[in-house]
Amino acid sequence: MEKLEDTQNERDSRDVAIQRVGIRELRHPIIFLDCENDKQATVATAAMAVALSPELRGTHMSRFVAILSEVAESVSLAQLPAILETMLERLEASEATFELQFPYFITKAAPITKSSGKLDYQVTLKAERLAEGREAIALSVRVPVTTLCPCSRNIAARGAHNQRGEVLVTVTGKAPDLPSIPTLIRAVEASGSSELYSVLKRPDEKQVTERAYDHPVFVEDLVRNVAVKLRAMNGIDTFRIEGENFESIHNHNAFAVVVEG
Amino acid sequence: MEKLEDTQNERDSRDVAIQRVGIRELRHPIIFLDCENDKQATVATAAMAVALSPELRGTHMSRFVAILSEVAESVSLAQLPAILETMLERLEASEATFELQFPYFITKAAPITKSSGKLDYQVTLKAERLAEGREAIALSVRVPVTTLCPCSRNIAARGAHNQRGEVLVTVTGKAPDLPSIPTLIRAVEASGSSELYSVLKRPDEKQVTERAYDHPVFVEDLVRNVAVKLRAMNGIDTFRIEGENFESIHNHNAFAVVVEG
Amino acid sequence: MEKLEDTQNERDSRDVAIQRVGIRELRHPIIFLDCENDKQATVATAAMAVALSPELRGTHMSRFVAILSEVAESVSLAQLPAILETMLERLEASEATFELQFPYFITKAAPITKSSGKLDYQVTLKAERLAEGREAIALSVRVPVTTLCPCSRNIAARGAHNQRGEVLVTVTGKAPDLPSIPTLIRAVEASGSSELYSVLKRPDEKQVTERAYDHPVFVEDLVRNVAVKLRAMNGIDTFRIEGENFESIHNHNAFAVVVEG
Amino acid sequence: MEKLEDTQNERDSRDVAIQRVGIRELRHPIIFLDCENDKQATVATAAMAVALSPELRGTHMSRFVAILSEVAESVSLAQLPAILETMLERLEASEATFELQFPYFITKAAPITKSSGKLDYQVTLKAERLAEGREAIALSVRVPVTTLCPCSRNIAARGAHNQRGEVLVTVTGKAPDLPSIPTLIRAVEASGSSELYSVLKRPDEKQVTERAYDHPVFVEDLVRNVAVKLRAMNGIDTFRIEGENFESIHNHNAFAVVVEG
Repeated sequence: MEKLEDTQNERDSRDVAIQRVGIRELRHPIIFLDCENDKQATVATAAMAVALSPELRGTHMSRFVAILSEVAESVSLAQLPAILETMLERLEASEATFELQFPYFITKAAPITKSSGKLDYQVTLKAERLAEGREAIALSVRVPVTTLCPCSRNIAARGAHNQRGEVLVTVTGKAPDLPSIPTLIRAVEASGSSELYSVLKRPDEKQVTERAYDHPVFVEDLVRNVAVKLRAMNGIDTFRIEGENFESIHNHNAFAVVVEG
Repeated sequence: MEKLEDTQNERDSRDVAIQRVGIRELRHPIIFLDCENDKQATVATAAMAVALSPELRGTHMSRFVAILSEVAESVSLAQLPAILETMLERLEASEATFELQFPYFITKAAPITKSSGKLDYQVTLKAERLAEGREAIALSVRVPVTTLCPCSRNIAARGAHNQRGEVLVTVTGKAPDLPSIPTLIRAVEASGSSELYSVLKRPDEKQVTERAYDHPVFVEDLVRNVAVKLRAMNGIDTFRIEGENFESIHNHNAFAVVVEG
Repeated sequence: MEKLEDTQNERDSRDVAIQRVGIRELRHPIIFLDCENDKQATVATAAMAVALSPELRGTHMSRFVAILSEVAESVSLAQLPAILETMLERLEASEATFELQFPYFITKAAPITKSSGKLDYQVTLKAERLAEGREAIALSVRVPVTTLCPCSRNIAARGAHNQRGEVLVTVTGKAPDLPSIPTLIRAVEASGSSELYSVLKRPDEKQVTERAYDHPVFVEDLVRNVAVKLRAMNGIDTFRIEGENFESIHNHNAFAVVVEG
Repeated sequence: MEKLEDTQNERDSRDVAIQRVGIRELRHPIIFLDCENDKQATVATAAMAVALSPELRGTHMSRFVAILSEVAESVSLAQLPAILETMLERLEASEATFELQFPYFITKAAPITKSSGKLDYQVTLKAERLAEGREAIALSVRVPVTTLCPCSRNIAARGAHNQRGEVLVTVTGKAPDLPSIPTLIRAVEASGSSELYSVLKRPDEKQVTERAYDHPVFVEDLVRNVAVKLRAMNGIDTFRIEGENFESIHNHNAFAVVVEG
């Protein structure tokens, strides 16, 4: 095989450090192992990057893909530090970021008939290794909920406008101590007017409708309810809660953000 | 200027006619003149294409962009036949399609306080000239509405789940005879449980909530209500009505389609 | 359990037949069995719908979800007729549509170093049962390719602009006779300037660059090359080929469509 | 008019401060006045929010929409502090964020034939007023470019893979001192292998192809070239440069980020 010039390895004279360089929008099947011993086959969109010092011209992109394909058969929170370690070694870098986003499914039973079906949540794992050796793990879950407007309920003679909303919860902490994904989902689902289901028969729909009417929440209430629950959990260093209502009476959305820690 | 080879003008021997070849995802500012004499500055995403006969290798893409920039300052339904004519001539083609998608705004007053604000609708104009000289004009409007579930209302002791929904109405006919965009919007807005507003104060919210509770519609009712109204309008050759509810109790959507003519 | 009113079962007097009513944007994990005996765990987005006759007010949405969860563990082209049959029975309908969209992966070796990695393709299966008993199966695959512009190559003293492009191929026919997904992918990948890879090392990149330069294609050439290959395959009743180039020298895309049969 | 309960004004006992609460995904036509005295009619997507202290239950969402519609006819960087001031007053808040995202157009002449056409860029204005009275203005522009791979060029006997890329530049500083939008765009367009055009005839395409071949850049080079230019500009407190290549030989993207200040 002929010797090919290694352009990436050239010296760079612009004196610009690059915080992160890598790949993203790479789709790959993964097996995800949850803290609750659940094992799911799903499809992730990956982003992987490293820091590049000012004197190096380029990184070696193909190594990211190789690393992902090695670890994809068994991804878990516990494994993130080892993946970062591998990235630092193979890319000869001082800092690295590894991020996966994927749909995560929970089988739920309808509240009355117990008819069951899978509901999907969007999960993001982001692990970062910084120069001074510090590690940052962020776990995000996007959870859909029903929100019923307290103002509308209070002022209307009948009914109350409600809608699908979403909460994006991000918690940071040490990988082994973080709450599990289902724990975060349950905290959010208990904070809205009602949780969502994939299958609801009429007795279930009656229960869900009345439950929502009995638990009205503004988007402000929604994120505060989640905040109170996260404060009571162990293993969370910081959290960020972002709620959004796809308002049924407007063509824009209402949103609220709480950040703590 | 040196003579450059015209690769597009080569003969092709594969014997494959191309139904449409052109450009899309081209964003351009436009001034849109509505049938109701309203004049709006907005931003369109354009698609323009022609038929290419089997013996020609390629079309001349830059001509599409030139034509769009010539007509963008004054776009109307009435002008579509002339634009198609220009495309046929300049691209030396027998068939052509011209399509613009853009946000269209209506200033609406809230039902009680009359506070006003602009609401956005997505409009698509599609004009086509076919080989035999036939012209097809399709006007589409995407209209957001509130839908309140009749089943939920009937079985629940209190409240009823509701949500934002959308109706995509497409009508075809001769350009001068088609209903105006506001006429189509009004037909859809009168077919849901309530219309949407950009500004609602408390007295308005009370009215909108109660109105929705008093006019429950399934997604099936929604599209049928629109169908009944379109049947009564002049100037429509065919219509397609697609309703979709972003269900507040599910993480999936309900949809229904009616096609006539 | 109290007897709850069945609002969906009411009679409707508007005299509007609904072509399709159902659910969409429902995400669900599936196991997909390919004709080439490959078995993949992936995540699908489903749409399921039936026809509703004018005299019935509504369909029963929860039944769609139940059917999907029953069949999700083993989806294949061969199984589509049975799924449609189940839908007709359980929804008491005369027509039905079942559609799944999901990422599909192929492990590919780089051309020189044979480094391997997975590449993703977007697959759509759409099965339809019409009133007169006729069944329509459509298989679509979206395949990314490299396209290098023949005009640019011919007129420039050095280099040629190229870009990522995509081909969406849709074939219809009887389920057992249709070409397999990998067969369709290979036909498209052999029709562009080069195919794409997830891992390329320098010797591979050299080969891919030169191959692309040696095989320039307009978007018109791209779809025609695919058309010639599909014409030579058995089991296809009709096909539609849509090519799109994310032009590297423009901020809009070039596209071409061939429809036959 | 009957007196309606003001649920938003209730006291809250959860002791959770809300960093931001407001609206987003609100589309509105605007007239934008650029620092270079250019005046454009375009369509913005707005997000507006305020901080909410722990003891208040909710904010008054309709006031955001009213403020936007008052200022929409004349938006400029210079006007942002006044808009923030209005938000603080009307929402009775201590902090506020105002954000607009909109397509911005520049008419460009092709390099040889001087054929002209409009090219679109995505602009984001984000103004923030923090509790201690500090104001933060961030101006972002997303600029498409051509990038031609230096490695591919160096190792291949002919040609070089290239693709459309994008640079998202965000600068912060005082509103009157920030570089104008066209200045930022020109800095990015001079940092890639070639800039993009909406209309190119053959002599232009030849020039653009050769220019790109003569100026190969990795995504790392791209962001560094921009960084060097921004360092030399006055009025910038901090900048963030994010480059992304839609790789023509992969189905994933390469990206790089430089942050300074």
